[in-house]
Amino acid sequence: MTDQIITLDYGSGGKLTNQLIRSLFLKYFNNSILNQLHDGAILPQTKKRIAFSTDSYTVSPLFFNGGNIGDLAIHGTVNDLAMCGAIPKYFSVSFLIEEGVTLQTLEQITCSMAEASRRTGVEIVTGDTKVVNKGDIDGIFINTTGIGFIDNDVHIHPGSAQVNDVIIVNGPIGNHGISILASRENLQLEENVISDTAPLAELVQEMLSVTKEIHVLRDPTRGGLATALNEIAQSSQVEIEVLEEKIPIDTMVRDTCKILGYDPLYLANEGKLIAFLPEQFAEKALRRMRGNKLGEQATIIGRVIASGRAEVFLKTDIGGKRLLGMLSGEQLPRIC
Amino acid sequence: MTDQIITLDYGSGGKLTNQLIRSLFLKYFNNSILNQLHDGAILPQTKKRIAFSTDSYTVSPLFFNGGNIGDLAIHGTVNDLAMCGAIPKYFSVSFLIEEGVTLQTLEQITCSMAEASRRTGVEIVTGDTKVVNKGDIDGIFINTTGIGFIDNDVHIHPGSAQVNDVIIVNGPIGNHGISILASRENLQLEENVISDTAPLAELVQEMLSVTKEIHVLRDPTRGGLATALNEIAQSSQVEIEVLEEKIPIDTMVRDTCKILGYDPLYLANEGKLIAFLPEQFAEKALRRMRGNKLGEQATIIGRVIASGRAEVFLKTDIGGKRLLGMLSGEQLPRIC
Repeated sequence: MTDQIITLDYGSGGKLTNQLIRSLFLKYFNNSILNQLHDGAILPQTKKRIAFSTDSYTVSPLFFNGGNIGDLAIHGTVNDLAMCGAIPKYFSVSFLIEEGVTLQTLEQITCSMAEASRRTGVEIVTGDTKVVNKGDIDGIFINTTGIGFIDNDVHIHPGSAQVNDVIIVNGPIGNHGISILASRENLQLEENVISDTAPLAELVQEMLSVTKEIHVLRDPTRGGLATALNEIAQSSQVEIEVLEEKIPIDTMVRDTCKILGYDPLYLANEGKLIAFLPEQFAEKALRRMRGNKLGEQATIIGRVIASGRAEVFLKTDIGGKRLLGMLSGEQLPRIC
Repeated sequence: MTDQIITLDYGSGGKLTNQLIRSLFLKYFNNSILNQLHDGAILPQTKKRIAFSTDSYTVSPLFFNGGNIGDLAIHGTVNDLAMCGAIPKYFSVSFLIEEGVTLQTLEQITCSMAEASRRTGVEIVTGDTKVVNKGDIDGIFINTTGIGFIDNDVHIHPGSAQVNDVIIVNGPIGNHGISILASRENLQLEENVISDTAPLAELVQEMLSVTKEIHVLRDPTRGGLATALNEIAQSSQVEIEVLEEKIPIDTMVRDTCKILGYDPLYLANEGKLIAFLPEQFAEKALRRMRGNKLGEQATIIGRVIASGRAEVFLKTDIGGKRLLGMLSGEQLPRIC
């Protein structure tokens, strides 16, 4: 079926929709709940709190250095659940497809989603497919919505940052933003910048095995590190100080930003987290994180210095101190 | 803010996204879970099974006779959960917005979603907003994903239809399809056809108060009544017979179909359900349904006549019998 293209009939809800579901989605996503083909998925009872998160993915181009819209759509929602301290479990997937997309493209993306789900222990249990006329959408957009379960002793919340908390990031920032930009604009970089798209749920569980006293977790996606820190400062009403020299940034990302006039602190990441926790647990958490491939370069970048005022300061390499605001304006549309 | 338009900055994840969330979404959807602004919503424990369903809405035009994309997006997912016998409870909402849409339009839609949620007892607890370049999407698309809870003694399933089950529909079919068509093509009908968009969860709970022995529920949306019956026939491996004269169709819908060459059995509905249940409960269920505004015209349209073969037959008004297939091809794109 690889030469075929998606026509409007595939989204009619009739014969071809049915065929697409059976030959593609059931084949790749295969599990006992999805296979029921009910109007909704029926999930077993649980005694845990439920984490519930949604994201629509519109990344352009569909395929980029390090991933594609399919695995990105799984990782992104896995990460949102992980930032609640949850173990991601059940996903819905909704495809919006432009008439004329090839079945081969859709199959590649579906296959990536299936692989990413398997690696993260997630089951895709329900879905939806809409096909719209050529020109009514650009290519393929995907919504994933996820359910995860939270252990009773975990209480992570953006409003829980406390004075003297240290702030950890799990690795270098800005790679996803520059990777998409390079793919989109056909930039010939000296060295390829690869998106950091990755699922963070396992890393978070490892951190929680060190201490349940993690106060805040956040994945700095759109808006980047600076915006995520500002959101936490606002939710917790605290003053944050980060040290420029401590923020890990790969050389190629740094150089590309300089040439093109981007600030890496505002670039999107898709496999990064920032954690706020009491200093006493920091060293042990860092050691544990560095044992995980996704935390090898984990490091402390700053701390909460006061409460009562929502502000984020950057101590610069040359000893200055400047206020770091939220992203204003748009750096790169359709980055995720 | 009604004169303003949505620019890419509103989807950046930065300042304007934050402002949009606070001034629009928190204002209308206001509830204690959403107000946390966590990466995901944290929902309390439950002892019931969870129903989980997703749908992306692409209806064109955004506003039509009887509703708009906003209430449609709530009703549609409410209905998918209701067809599992669930009581809908928590929703995620994800907006895809074309740069240039007015804030007024977005506010009208948001307001309709809030009203529809309140009427159905649903809380919108988490969300996402993406803005894409002009031309990358046509207007506004919305994904809603819902969580509902199922009582322990309810076991509704598309594969549970049994021989001698009667088939009930809650009212006339095809109104949504013709309403959208009329709005889209500016048809001047003698009498306006109004979409049947409505939430069916309450009606379903009333039916379940008569008997838990409802075997199958399905809302015949895209693909219409004929396609829904075929899906059930396939899942349950049964032969179904419906009587043409018993299927309620409003005169204006019937006449418009005749003129334009549409078959009402394949037109989309957004406030209709078909129920399969043992004959012994049918009269009592019908009486109960007719006491609900959404079931006033509820009637028996057919029955399951044999098992082992998945087929749907229509006994026509003139005494003939013909095989009723699934929708093949596309009647109307972007109908929901």
